[in-house]
Amino acid sequence: MENGITAPRGFKAAGISCGIKKRDKKDLALNYSEAPASSAALFTTNQIKAAPLKVSAEHIKDGKTQAIIINSGIANTATGKKGLEDAEEMAGITAEELSIKKENVLVASTGTIGTFLPMNKIAEGIKEAKEKLSEEGGREAAQAIMTTDTFPKEVAVELELGNKKVIIGGMAKGAGMISPHLATMLSFITTDVVISGELLKKTLKSSIAKSFNMITVDGEESTNDMVVILANGLAGNEEITEDDEDFKKFSFGLDEVTLKLAKMIVKDGEGAAKFIEVEVKNALKFEDAKRIAFSTANSLLVKTAIFGEDANWGRIMAAIGNSGVKIEEDKIDIYLGNLKLASKGCGVKFSEEEAKKILKKKEIKIIVDLNLGEKSAKVWTCDLTPEYVKINAHYRT
Amino acid sequence: MENGITAPRGFKAAGISCGIKKRDKKDLALNYSEAPASSAALFTTNQIKAAPLKVSAEHIKDGKTQAIIINSGIANTATGKKGLEDAEEMAGITAEELSIKKENVLVASTGTIGTFLPMNKIAEGIKEAKEKLSEEGGREAAQAIMTTDTFPKEVAVELELGNKKVIIGGMAKGAGMISPHLATMLSFITTDVVISGELLKKTLKSSIAKSFNMITVDGEESTNDMVVILANGLAGNEEITEDDEDFKKFSFGLDEVTLKLAKMIVKDGEGAAKFIEVEVKNALKFEDAKRIAFSTANSLLVKTAIFGEDANWGRIMAAIGNSGVKIEEDKIDIYLGNLKLASKGCGVKFSEEEAKKILKKKEIKIIVDLNLGEKSAKVWTCDLTPEYVKINAHYRT
Repeated sequence: MENGITAPRGFKAAGISCGIKKRDKKDLALNYSEAPASSAALFTTNQIKAAPLKVSAEHIKDGKTQAIIINSGIANTATGKKGLEDAEEMAGITAEELSIKKENVLVASTGTIGTFLPMNKIAEGIKEAKEKLSEEGGREAAQAIMTTDTFPKEVAVELELGNKKVIIGGMAKGAGMISPHLATMLSFITTDVVISGELLKKTLKSSIAKSFNMITVDGEESTNDMVVILANGLAGNEEITEDDEDFKKFSFGLDEVTLKLAKMIVKDGEGAAKFIEVEVKNALKFEDAKRIAFSTANSLLVKTAIFGEDANWGRIMAAIGNSGVKIEEDKIDIYLGNLKLASKGCGVKFSEEEAKKILKKKEIKIIVDLNLGEKSAKVWTCDLTPEYVKINAHYRT
Repeated sequence: MENGITAPRGFKAAGISCGIKKRDKKDLALNYSEAPASSAALFTTNQIKAAPLKVSAEHIKDGKTQAIIINSGIANTATGKKGLEDAEEMAGITAEELSIKKENVLVASTGTIGTFLPMNKIAEGIKEAKEKLSEEGGREAAQAIMTTDTFPKEVAVELELGNKKVIIGGMAKGAGMISPHLATMLSFITTDVVISGELLKKTLKSSIAKSFNMITVDGEESTNDMVVILANGLAGNEEITEDDEDFKKFSFGLDEVTLKLAKMIVKDGEGAAKFIEVEVKNALKFEDAKRIAFSTANSLLVKTAIFGEDANWGRIMAAIGNSGVKIEEDKIDIYLGNLKLASKGCGVKFSEEEAKKILKKKEIKIIVDLNLGEKSAKVWTCDLTPEYVKINAHYRT
């Protein structure tokens, strides 16, 4: 489908430049639902939490949200009492402009940590954004939340519940400080479905566990991660109130949205040249498979080898051994795509030419078969390139 | 002092090229003590352990060692039963050449994982190394254990116990896959002290906890890490048999040796441009301080900011929040050298010029003051540079 967060009925958005970033880059996004929406959110598990997250956590307590105001360029993190006041003020101005309750506005920020927001510019910006709210504004909003991202990330899917069309749209930003383990990412999802608040929370949590919580760019969990879903009920479907067929259909659609956004984040990982899927198969527990997959996906030595197009599977072995999960070395098989590199913990003779052909591609698949049980996990990451270092060496200055 | 492992009385060493590495680079080191030595060792906690470690762990059980044979270029890891046989054979050939018991020979390897050793070349090499054993051979041995290292790492100190001079010498190699948390590094220490086996073990363990276990280059724990100490007793001091003044003196000397070697490893970290000390002060527990220091030292975003000479202290805040240690955000102070960057969890106005001056230096000190308790920890690391990525992109090929 065309469009992201403005694809569902009754949602408007805008993305403008208010002067936080240099060179007139877009840095303020407003997302508005005509009807008050049921909402659910997850926030970072990093103990240092940005001020907007603290404010949003308060405002979402009643499960109702009608607008989200988001700035990029400055994270409003490690900003103490003034930071909290600023975040609260962002919600206040937005509420006033839209003539809604302040508690129905959520706030999010992303950018440099430890810097105060230019509140005058933001106040002016919110007014401008309100004027520009439109049903085609999803793309501009997705652009306005970008930091080191090289492309905006949005997606929308349509499904049928009863004889009603239900739409789910979403946007997200990356592209560094990405390792939202047990936590979240900066992503905003809208839908016109009619659903109970409880089930909305339930499906969001489960969907994120399979998508945003299964990606990593650099093993760094941000202080500002949050995912919000707004469901404004304008699709007119029979309200979903239990874990039935409709709930499964909706959850399936939501999974598609979150997974697509999560993969986009990895593909646009800072400096990334390759998209890598790490699948760990036949573990005793899902958690075991997940930990080994992350240990591999976060290994600088694995990531640099993929960048160098070198089938150095020994580094995958070392990463498996480092995961903290109990394994049996002499049962481990390792594959690069369909090519077997190691069998029962030992290297096998493989065609270097064939390996090179696989590694030349943009998308790489690593499979680790533990041969211990029946659980598996997939994690998505990117390679580590000199470009990542360059991007991050001078981010603030 | 001049010389490393051959500085103490009665130790000889050699380092030669036997053809494992290309271009006649040294790749085989032999270390020999004229008298059977008391020995102690620590091995990697990575669950994937190299074959030589398994063999050495068996051979050191009686606490007696007279020779160590070490090759670089191939790690002999993930090599199954044949790998074990090869490591055992390396010990066997060495024992035969030196006319000592096979159980008194330890074996170590470092290099590419998953490749078999060229045993013919190694057999020839051991014979050549035996012929070249000399009391000035420490430097050549230190060269022969290098992989991506740019300089050999050795050190020796002298101390007086009673009226006897006791010498401790050591060598080590880096320079990647370095994060020996709770474990060890590839390092070999010799001394002529007379000491009980039990106290030798005790002081080695405690010394490593303060040195090799407090460094990280890339957060990757190797499959081949080991530290060995040989004490051949030729100094003729009164045997150290309890935790007395002499034991403290010796332990102090050993700490100096291990700490110097550990810091050399970090200074020679792959692609490193800066040496970084992270000190975490006033934690409730030492373990808390250590975890926060490692969370900071392993953060790619902190490491790249230091490479870029950017005082981006917000990334230090994020790393603190990610450590898993309970902290109080509004008590945290952060310093760059003597320059305060954050106070009570918030940024302070600081001179960017002053920060730049500090960051231009080769050695950088980050101080995190938690203001919670009285425990502190220091961890040493290096920055992350495009050069690290380049070195590791094509290590195997």
